[in-house]
Amino acid sequence: MTIRLFVTGGTFDKEYDELRGTLQFRDTHVPEMLRLGRSRLDVAVRTLMMIDSLDMTDEDRTTIVEHCERCEENHIVITHGTDTMVETARVLAAAISNKTIVLTGAMIPYAFGSSDGLFNLGSALSFVQVLPPGVYVAMNGRYFRWDRVRKNRDAGVFEDALNRWG
Amino acid sequence: MTIRLFVTGGTFDKEYDELRGTLQFRDTHVPEMLRLGRSRLDVAVRTLMMIDSLDMTDEDRTTIVEHCERCEENHIVITHGTDTMVETARVLAAAISNKTIVLTGAMIPYAFGSSDGLFNLGSALSFVQVLPPGVYVAMNGRYFRWDRVRKNRDAGVFEDALNRWG
Amino acid sequence: MTIRLFVTGGTFDKEYDELRGTLQFRDTHVPEMLRLGRSRLDVAVRTLMMIDSLDMTDEDRTTIVEHCERCEENHIVITHGTDTMVETARVLAAAISNKTIVLTGAMIPYAFGSSDGLFNLGSALSFVQVLPPGVYVAMNGRYFRWDRVRKNRDAGVFEDALNRWG
Amino acid sequence: MTIRLFVTGGTFDKEYDELRGTLQFRDTHVPEMLRLGRSRLDVAVRTLMMIDSLDMTDEDRTTIVEHCERCEENHIVITHGTDTMVETARVLAAAISNKTIVLTGAMIPYAFGSSDGLFNLGSALSFVQVLPPGVYVAMNGRYFRWDRVRKNRDAGVFEDALNRWG
Repeated sequence: MTIRLFVTGGTFDKEYDELRGTLQFRDTHVPEMLRLGRSRLDVAVRTLMMIDSLDMTDEDRTTIVEHCERCEENHIVITHGTDTMVETARVLAAAISNKTIVLTGAMIPYAFGSSDGLFNLGSALSFVQVLPPGVYVAMNGRYFRWDRVRKNRDAGVFEDALNRWG
Repeated sequence: MTIRLFVTGGTFDKEYDELRGTLQFRDTHVPEMLRLGRSRLDVAVRTLMMIDSLDMTDEDRTTIVEHCERCEENHIVITHGTDTMVETARVLAAAISNKTIVLTGAMIPYAFGSSDGLFNLGSALSFVQVLPPGVYVAMNGRYFRWDRVRKNRDAGVFEDALNRWG
Repeated sequence: MTIRLFVTGGTFDKEYDELRGTLQFRDTHVPEMLRLGRSRLDVAVRTLMMIDSLDMTDEDRTTIVEHCERCEENHIVITHGTDTMVETARVLAAAISNKTIVLTGAMIPYAFGSSDGLFNLGSALSFVQVLPPGVYVAMNGRYFRWDRVRKNRDAGVFEDALNRWG
Repeated sequence: MTIRLFVTGGTFDKEYDELRGTLQFRDTHVPEMLRLGRSRLDVAVRTLMMIDSLDMTDEDRTTIVEHCERCEENHIVITHGTDTMVETARVLAAAISNKTIVLTGAMIPYAFGSSDGLFNLGSALSFVQVLPPGVYVAMNGRYFRWDRVRKNRDAGVFEDALNRWG
């Protein structure tokens, strides 16, 4: 089984720009994380965009949907900013029903010592191998159907919720 | 769903003893890893032993089996040294058939910067939630049935293999 | 010899705020860094402020000068943002001549895996023990007199320069 | 000023051999540490040996002495295992009096997350620039003359002591 992994940016891949003292995006850390995790999965990584999910437009989401539709693989992981992850999951679910798609992200950038990113990546890659077709969010060690989840911004965690589309 | 997590030691929990310059066991790092991964799973952690899996005796394996049988939970993760992980999986499979049990470990100690431990823990906790009853090994991002896996010691990875019990 | 260490903030102590996705200050990491470095120096740490050095006002600099003047210790290290470190060094040099004062900082926050902070702290604490009275900047493994240094913002390093006060 | 840096091994450079589950030496981490510390010093690194200092023979010490004598530089840092660092310092002091030589090491390997190595390297490189000719040990943020120091093995720290050669 080949797993397709689409990178869209998000906290996962933020870095510290030492010349400007700000956060920025450069390249994705996913290949390095797969090496660190000693992954022996057949994962095909492709970066679609490198943005904060608060800046994600309808057009960006269309790009993501099209890539998920067109790719050969039926098992897809998407790294994504947490703020609008559920929104992108909804758009994907409206368009695609015959593939297993798992969105994941991180609360702390991978490049910053104490990230949850490696844990979440291991989790998302595992869920995508065994869950039936559908669109899911994998965060905090759990998986959620796209229409049964919301991000609790005050606590910084994802939780069960019949969201407005559920 | 409550997940039972039994700690048995292994590379996962090795530390560097700075007074002696050797590797040693102290306390498990699993609770710290669950915090780092921002886990919101209901995980009940219990340390059964803290040993190198090459030193694991039949008696030790009996202890593990008994705890898996007696505990209330039907979803169990066991952290274990990689060298004899498959052997312990076999003993568990011979005794227990109605629970989902996932063994995992690490090639590099968690306490040493570049460990695969966090990735593997995220993976094992995910598989245990969705795989049907049975005994599995979760390593390298993959899961294996207890009778279809072996550790390739030269490469330091787990691979598909009809082992001697399969 | 007791070394006085004044914390003023700067990149050194920036953290990632996972709820807001921005950089922030909380507590200083200096005591943790001294532990990590197994320091056996007699260091008295005091936080004077916790700010980006671009936000440092004349009043803030007066506060720093007063604390350096009044404290009992003759060997002082100041952690400081790099952008205006040289400016604060100048103000200190104008007011104090009988103490050895070393300013240091970091290009990458200590809390982010790959920081230069620990290296710089080891360096500053060493220079302060052996340099004659005067005000110095310790960065990039080197020390500079306050009037012979500038930050090269394009390269992100400190370099020899007869600055405008030199 | 060019600083000569001789690598001899020691805890500083130990790594975890994931295939054997033991500690080992491969290449030195010093160049990577200099990059991490954003060092702008002119440092010429040369590996003389890669051994545990408990295994260091008289011949090895002769090799170190000869390299320190013959090299052009008058400022030398030596990374060294902590167990016999003081012994090597003594041999150096008996042979060389016109150069500043600073020995340093680490209690925790650099490759293992929480090392004191980067702090010690910053410290040693700073002391070597400003101390008068002589042989010194730089550990725990402090510097010691070769004949006024001993390693306290129970505490894992270096301390003032009129040693048997002092």
